[in-house]
Amino acid sequence: MTQQKMFLSDNAASVHPAVWNALRAADDPQPPYDGDRLSQRMDSVFSDMFGRECSALWVGTGTASNCLALATMVQPHGGVICHRESHIESDECGAPGFYLHGAKLLLADGEGARLTPATVETVLAGITRGIHQVQAHAISVTQVSEYGLAYRPDALAEIGAVAREHGLPLHMDGARFANAAAFLDCPPADVVGPADALSFGFIKNGGMDADAIVFFDPERAELARWRRKRAGHLQSKGRFLAAQILALAETGIWLDNARTANQAAAEIAGAAKGRLMHPVEANEVFVYLGAAERAALRAQGFAFYDWDDHSARLVTAWNTRQEDAAALGRAIAAL
Amino acid sequence: MTQQKMFLSDNAASVHPAVWNALRAADDPQPPYDGDRLSQRMDSVFSDMFGRECSALWVGTGTASNCLALATMVQPHGGVICHRESHIESDECGAPGFYLHGAKLLLADGEGARLTPATVETVLAGITRGIHQVQAHAISVTQVSEYGLAYRPDALAEIGAVAREHGLPLHMDGARFANAAAFLDCPPADVVGPADALSFGFIKNGGMDADAIVFFDPERAELARWRRKRAGHLQSKGRFLAAQILALAETGIWLDNARTANQAAAEIAGAAKGRLMHPVEANEVFVYLGAAERAALRAQGFAFYDWDDHSARLVTAWNTRQEDAAALGRAIAAL
Amino acid sequence: MTQQKMFLSDNAASVHPAVWNALRAADDPQPPYDGDRLSQRMDSVFSDMFGRECSALWVGTGTASNCLALATMVQPHGGVICHRESHIESDECGAPGFYLHGAKLLLADGEGARLTPATVETVLAGITRGIHQVQAHAISVTQVSEYGLAYRPDALAEIGAVAREHGLPLHMDGARFANAAAFLDCPPADVVGPADALSFGFIKNGGMDADAIVFFDPERAELARWRRKRAGHLQSKGRFLAAQILALAETGIWLDNARTANQAAAEIAGAAKGRLMHPVEANEVFVYLGAAERAALRAQGFAFYDWDDHSARLVTAWNTRQEDAAALGRAIAAL
Amino acid sequence: MTQQKMFLSDNAASVHPAVWNALRAADDPQPPYDGDRLSQRMDSVFSDMFGRECSALWVGTGTASNCLALATMVQPHGGVICHRESHIESDECGAPGFYLHGAKLLLADGEGARLTPATVETVLAGITRGIHQVQAHAISVTQVSEYGLAYRPDALAEIGAVAREHGLPLHMDGARFANAAAFLDCPPADVVGPADALSFGFIKNGGMDADAIVFFDPERAELARWRRKRAGHLQSKGRFLAAQILALAETGIWLDNARTANQAAAEIAGAAKGRLMHPVEANEVFVYLGAAERAALRAQGFAFYDWDDHSARLVTAWNTRQEDAAALGRAIAAL
Repeated sequence: MTQQKMFLSDNAASVHPAVWNALRAADDPQPPYDGDRLSQRMDSVFSDMFGRECSALWVGTGTASNCLALATMVQPHGGVICHRESHIESDECGAPGFYLHGAKLLLADGEGARLTPATVETVLAGITRGIHQVQAHAISVTQVSEYGLAYRPDALAEIGAVAREHGLPLHMDGARFANAAAFLDCPPADVVGPADALSFGFIKNGGMDADAIVFFDPERAELARWRRKRAGHLQSKGRFLAAQILALAETGIWLDNARTANQAAAEIAGAAKGRLMHPVEANEVFVYLGAAERAALRAQGFAFYDWDDHSARLVTAWNTRQEDAAALGRAIAAL
Repeated sequence: MTQQKMFLSDNAASVHPAVWNALRAADDPQPPYDGDRLSQRMDSVFSDMFGRECSALWVGTGTASNCLALATMVQPHGGVICHRESHIESDECGAPGFYLHGAKLLLADGEGARLTPATVETVLAGITRGIHQVQAHAISVTQVSEYGLAYRPDALAEIGAVAREHGLPLHMDGARFANAAAFLDCPPADVVGPADALSFGFIKNGGMDADAIVFFDPERAELARWRRKRAGHLQSKGRFLAAQILALAETGIWLDNARTANQAAAEIAGAAKGRLMHPVEANEVFVYLGAAERAALRAQGFAFYDWDDHSARLVTAWNTRQEDAAALGRAIAAL
Repeated sequence: MTQQKMFLSDNAASVHPAVWNALRAADDPQPPYDGDRLSQRMDSVFSDMFGRECSALWVGTGTASNCLALATMVQPHGGVICHRESHIESDECGAPGFYLHGAKLLLADGEGARLTPATVETVLAGITRGIHQVQAHAISVTQVSEYGLAYRPDALAEIGAVAREHGLPLHMDGARFANAAAFLDCPPADVVGPADALSFGFIKNGGMDADAIVFFDPERAELARWRRKRAGHLQSKGRFLAAQILALAETGIWLDNARTANQAAAEIAGAAKGRLMHPVEANEVFVYLGAAERAALRAQGFAFYDWDDHSARLVTAWNTRQEDAAALGRAIAAL
Repeated sequence: MTQQKMFLSDNAASVHPAVWNALRAADDPQPPYDGDRLSQRMDSVFSDMFGRECSALWVGTGTASNCLALATMVQPHGGVICHRESHIESDECGAPGFYLHGAKLLLADGEGARLTPATVETVLAGITRGIHQVQAHAISVTQVSEYGLAYRPDALAEIGAVAREHGLPLHMDGARFANAAAFLDCPPADVVGPADALSFGFIKNGGMDADAIVFFDPERAELARWRRKRAGHLQSKGRFLAAQILALAETGIWLDNARTANQAAAEIAGAAKGRLMHPVEANEVFVYLGAAERAALRAQGFAFYDWDDHSARLVTAWNTRQEDAAALGRAIAAL
């Protein structure tokens, strides 16, 4: 595998130089866990970013981030309304069942793996059998969705209104939150909208092994601290996780990295117009490609995953070179 | 805080230069999770170290390492015999209750926080009420114990015999396994003895955020993989965890680091003889020190934790300087 | 409410006289839990019924019966393939999530709420993402289904073959097993087919508060005993539960009661032919009835539940009088 | 075994005639679950008994009663302070671990298996390691204790004050609450004291298979309803459980039955004075008896359990005949 032609996933991409520098700079003796200088600064960095009081925790994976956030919202006998193609439903090996002690995922529809007020209401309307049925305790949306589509601020506001009406907190899986922010080109506060907690992905954004959970309610954050420790996610040298997050979030790098990735995806999308399964709004391009076509591209050195028998998923990352994206675009166009 | 006089804990010490080098070297594109070259080599490195077939998984904390190992041994309705001062009982915020789905810790006695065949048998003998009482499903020992004391190979063999007799698998919490190996000065296979799984600590040994779970039974390892993912501990850039572990375990550095730490502790212990609460066999020194004495030492720039009202715990690490240890020894002797 | 016109549910019907007699007869001092004479006879009664070695446990509800049976088959990180309209999915308030410690229900399709080999295979074929996805650990079928439809012995055998091929144990929710047996008119062994455990309903069959879990594998039964106690379902005066079950199962009453109920349902079905949503094979009749029609029937003293806006569910029980069923049939025909 | 000489346990004693009558009277068609007339009356019956607003739920066992009550108080990452010889710790096969999703029992001392403010404070004082240690979320006392000793109202008030000071709800395991009330001879409100929930035992009091959970806070009761259903304890013919409870609680029978049992125990105790391990305050008599002495008593037809190698536990029930108790007393005196 050579780096310049990798379109497999952003989840294993290289670590950004600024992150490396921050890691090395963090290697002086400091109090363990999150008692260090860097961890202590996380709240204020995110408070600045979102323009309101935040409590932020680092954690080693997106799965833990999603599950710990939801654990502050959902009791074991409750459920989470989420899209049936969401990551928590399909790709976390039942982690929500573990972290939420058996709570249920209540599956909703919606184009492009995005919920709508109507599809959320449909799930809620189906909960009619009282004590015999699992009740919704929270809603979870993914920004950007599994198909790389962004929720617009007004769409989020509408879902937030439904949530409020039913007394449900709102969680946002933001594994690619940065890509959404880059695409929407509006303040982070508008990208997160009315969510009560955000699982903010940095690992796909140039980090090594640190994501953040940003709580807009300090009580939830306190609760999450207990659950994080209990889940074995309170690292003793937590300063190294904080360092990664701050290196990206405190500077503009998180947004720059996302813009680079989005731009590369746009480059491919422009060349593959007739083949797109979904509009391209972030750093994922889903293209209809037959088996022979996929083989032809791979023969030219492009690495990517099949999506199904008739299509492929092409993912760009912060370190994708635009010339490689352009080359892939040309190769697809030439098929 | 200045590094040279820190005796707080080994859990937040600096990262060893060899680990930094390995981390940087791992930063090329590779398959995600544990599909990378480095993760793939872990089994053979530990198989070589222990002289028998091993399956090894990386994980981000010692708590997750202990709990995932135990999760392969204990059903939710069972229990784990462990010392009443063990880390899993006292310092993991109930993580075993979470990972084992409510299984119980069955507390045994033993000097210096070490189990003996007799104390294990006492717990087993107390399980007399059949269906009404939680049955033991496993035994967990800590090498070295919470008081820094090592199990001798023959002591382990005896506990292993009890375990076998009762059909119980044996887990070893080896957060400071390296320190035990350095002290016992015998092959790693003898330090782990009859344990079926070892939670092998590297974070306290110069690593950044990677410990290993070493299974001597490949089926257990397979089971642990599902549980690791489900607990949100399967990192996408797992190559960085493998890199840390290999940098220490594959070379002699893990043992060198432990020897350095042990030697520093021995230095202090030699000077504090009359005050020792426990023999010093690893890198922890428990000394009787009154409040005024502790204050006097701190005034001289030594940082450490109180153990209780009448004593202190002094911990050395791979990067403790012998002259600092010597200075601390002299300062105690001069009190 | 008057008994003779109740078609609400069989779950709250009266207790059969033979059960009352057995309860009274059980009221002499005996060892607690399941040490009494009656509990001790359960294994042999079901072994006789099914013609092979059985271990049977009493339990207070169908939900506990289903969940305890499944708990012997499914690990917390696994899943159960079941119909998306099954009781465990829809009507047990997430009890499987509790008893299985967060395991997932993997939903399959199939007409009349019955699985087919093909719909089971479809679910299995969708489990392609390895460690990231919950794997199937068991299959659960309902005999008769939520729509009152019976699995034929050959259909069960085919599902059993799929289960065996994939190494999955098979559970049968037999809340209305007796009604299936009455309809199929074949030996109980053929009604249960290749299932490894049967949740055998007696509460809907004239019992008061006792269902049985019948295991065809004694190891599973042993495991279930621990889980039953741990779930607070090991009653100290268990002899009263055993008494109920034996009063029905040991005599022909369980089958007679089911036949009576089925016959009453058939009576209604015969009169409501053009309106049936499903064939009527047991004691449930689903009929298309508009709001005005339902009101008209209720005005005549018939009690039943709406199924949805356009239909009603009519359930008969062991104590439904044939003349009431006939009257209901005539009333529907006359609409 | 003959009834008149049984001193094994009150948990398997006969069912009181009034309970039988109530059961038979309940056998008319009524709405399922707890929608029936009898279940609907439980709140007011206990409100009258305790002189304040109560919400009461029936449940099939004392274990479920204790665990469901605690489930409304304790989060999965918390703990329950209880006596180290309490039933929830020793005799429920880890049920609290199941119902509380891995929460920990924090064990306290106290003579006669009763907590004191001081022993509770000792446990609380030991919780010093912040995030690393399980925090107390509730306190549980047992009225009467495992050794048959009653908490006096002032003792309860003191424990209640500690609970309040630390913001902890208080649970009372009242498996033998009636015996406590009979002994203390004061209003039920004083016997329960400041407890927020009471697991009120009726099975040992002449019931068949129904205990009550009495909540003094309706929100907790609402929560418990979900958990009860999810635990498979919401019986469809719940009217039969309500009937049993009402038959005892609504009349004076619950207290009469306890008085009879206590009196029989007092009779034995009076004759066995020099041999008592504990004062006798309820229906349990712990007597020092050697192996030969126990054998001699059994030879005379008295049935009872050994407590340990040097003692026996003699338990009376509502249906123990005073002459049998007197005979046992004489037999002991004559040893």
